Amino acid sequence: MVDAKAIKEANRKAFLDVFPQLTNEVLDELRKYNMPEDAYEWTKQNLEYNVPGGKLNRGLSVVDTLYILKGDAATEEELHKARILGWLVEFLQAYFLVADDMMDGSITRRGQPCWYRKEGVSTIAINDSFILESCIFLFLKKYFKETSYYIDLVELFHEVSFQTQLGQLCDLITAPEDKVDLSKFSPEKTTTHLVIARHKFIVIYKTAYYSFYLPVVLALHMAGVHNAEAFKQCHDILIPLGEYFQVQDDYLDCYGDPAFIGKIGTDIQDNKCSWLINQALVVANSEQRKVLDENYGKKDAKAEAKIKQLYIDLDIESRYKAYEAKSYEELKALIAQVDESTGVKKQVFIEFMDKIYKRTK
Amino acid sequence: MVDAKAIKEANRKAFLDVFPQLTNEVLDELRKYNMPEDAYEWTKQNLEYNVPGGKLNRGLSVVDTLYILKGDAATEEELHKARILGWLVEFLQAYFLVADDMMDGSITRRGQPCWYRKEGVSTIAINDSFILESCIFLFLKKYFKETSYYIDLVELFHEVSFQTQLGQLCDLITAPEDKVDLSKFSPEKTTTHLVIARHKFIVIYKTAYYSFYLPVVLALHMAGVHNAEAFKQCHDILIPLGEYFQVQDDYLDCYGDPAFIGKIGTDIQDNKCSWLINQALVVANSEQRKVLDENYGKKDAKAEAKIKQLYIDLDIESRYKAYEAKSYEELKALIAQVDESTGVKKQVFIEFMDKIYKRTK
Repeated sequence: MVDAKAIKEANRKAFLDVFPQLTNEVLDELRKYNMPEDAYEWTKQNLEYNVPGGKLNRGLSVVDTLYILKGDAATEEELHKARILGWLVEFLQAYFLVADDMMDGSITRRGQPCWYRKEGVSTIAINDSFILESCIFLFLKKYFKETSYYIDLVELFHEVSFQTQLGQLCDLITAPEDKVDLSKFSPEKTTTHLVIARHKFIVIYKTAYYSFYLPVVLALHMAGVHNAEAFKQCHDILIPLGEYFQVQDDYLDCYGDPAFIGKIGTDIQDNKCSWLINQALVVANSEQRKVLDENYGKKDAKAEAKIKQLYIDLDIESRYKAYEAKSYEELKALIAQVDESTGVKKQVFIEFMDKIYKRTK
Repeated sequence: MVDAKAIKEANRKAFLDVFPQLTNEVLDELRKYNMPEDAYEWTKQNLEYNVPGGKLNRGLSVVDTLYILKGDAATEEELHKARILGWLVEFLQAYFLVADDMMDGSITRRGQPCWYRKEGVSTIAINDSFILESCIFLFLKKYFKETSYYIDLVELFHEVSFQTQLGQLCDLITAPEDKVDLSKFSPEKTTTHLVIARHKFIVIYKTAYYSFYLPVVLALHMAGVHNAEAFKQCHDILIPLGEYFQVQDDYLDCYGDPAFIGKIGTDIQDNKCSWLINQALVVANSEQRKVLDENYGKKDAKAEAKIKQLYIDLDIESRYKAYEAKSYEELKALIAQVDESTGVKKQVFIEFMDKIYKRTK
């Protein structure tokens, strides 16, 4: 009998085993440059502190997707290369998170202090984030230069980085910490459904591309899929899936258990353009709107509590549950329509759905 | 009669004329992504504030080098592409300077406030620096994808970025603002000449690669030079040339006219591993060393004045003049040995020398 959980654990272990090798390869590179010892040690810390330690879902999904696409025809060498690509997604994420934490003034990440808050690091973390990004292209050159799809991988990482930066920019300027103006969030009602233009732009660009589209497309390249329609199908399912994932994130920031999710939610105090506040803005009466305007984005626990109480009064949690159920149905319908003759498989998307639907961290 | 100055001015104007076009192309890209208007305006400001406005020597030297290599055989289309590559060097520099200014806590840059000090920018400048870097690869793809050397250009920018980041890291951890320890700078005397290992690593990696090696190698690729020996010759001259340039920079930080160089020198107060302090450490007696230990790296004008007085007592300026003369002779000798049959030309290096020897800003 096949034990799915044991296989999952073995896959995870094989994935984790690759990381020390990658770290050593970066360090070998520094040795070639005759880097002073303290800078060498610093870089080792930078990599080990910031790259592993997350849930690794993004990285693992490169390997999972390749396995779904190729099945047992996937050789151990191919799986190893897929693990490397998976780690490069984790390097990309580390590059963004180190910087995001500084920009958001966050305190903890993955249950430990943010890198820039470590003694002696501070703004040096900016350059450390650059180095994390550089590692991606170092490894692409080392492991993929001889493949026919090398330049596709390089361009994909560039494009997705750029998209993530644009999402981050929009997020940051929508929610300046010192100037709260909820009208900037601008949710709009149409006749059929809620259009939340700015929130949508932020979540799709800041999260969906690098977390969902990138890992799958990396695996498609490795599997030799060239059909443009396959890439389009991935895009048209994975971007809404990523949007749904980020709405969950917004929800968990407020309603999740800090001990369980590994961070203390700060969206309300940070004046974030979260799904929750956008919903509240749609349904609040003028009196409630006044409470929102006066308390949202304040660095003050009492003001935050008032917002949370208003979310309860407005039953935002029920709206979230309804959104969750609706998204699930819509995504299931999209997946059912996938044309597998293009080279992509429905199972790729089904596994993603299973991983994130009703997640609690 | 050919007027060299008029030609130089015309070249500069042709170069400057390309920038607004590049800005518009980035903005067109953002339009395609349906980016909210304020984020679009923000990016426009980011580009216009940070990319032009420097001396443009790095960018212009791509065009100058291509012209030296190809002469009148260079078509207007090729020169236009060389100008674009030149601007990409300026984008790379902008990416680093925006971040460096935050890490160094600098106040002004190019005679205006540093970007992160502008109202409302602050740490958002981190993400803005990422976006400046992304533009490089956007343009390489747009203008060079069809060339045989596209991947060489992409890899070159990756490699030089990485080298610059390593130099910056070493610079930052050698000179922490809160912990002054001059023994970390560790200048060493050998029987024949001064070996300043750490200072050398910092200046070569932080400055020489991107400022000198990169522009010339970009032009070599455009000119169709493939000979590995040509690249090696460029490396072996341009890296020491860049080192010499950075020593000048260290000198000007202390002895240059702030109104003329466009910034107020902060190396002494910032505890920087500058060429000047390294020289002072070599020749100081134990009493003078005590003055260095007690006053270097202090955020205090009086302590800074004591260091400057000690530099005068130790006649560091004369040592600099001697270093300058010696470097000039050594570089001239290296250039005389260049084998032009590899495709590179002596004139490339001679023009660089003329531009930087005895510069005052």
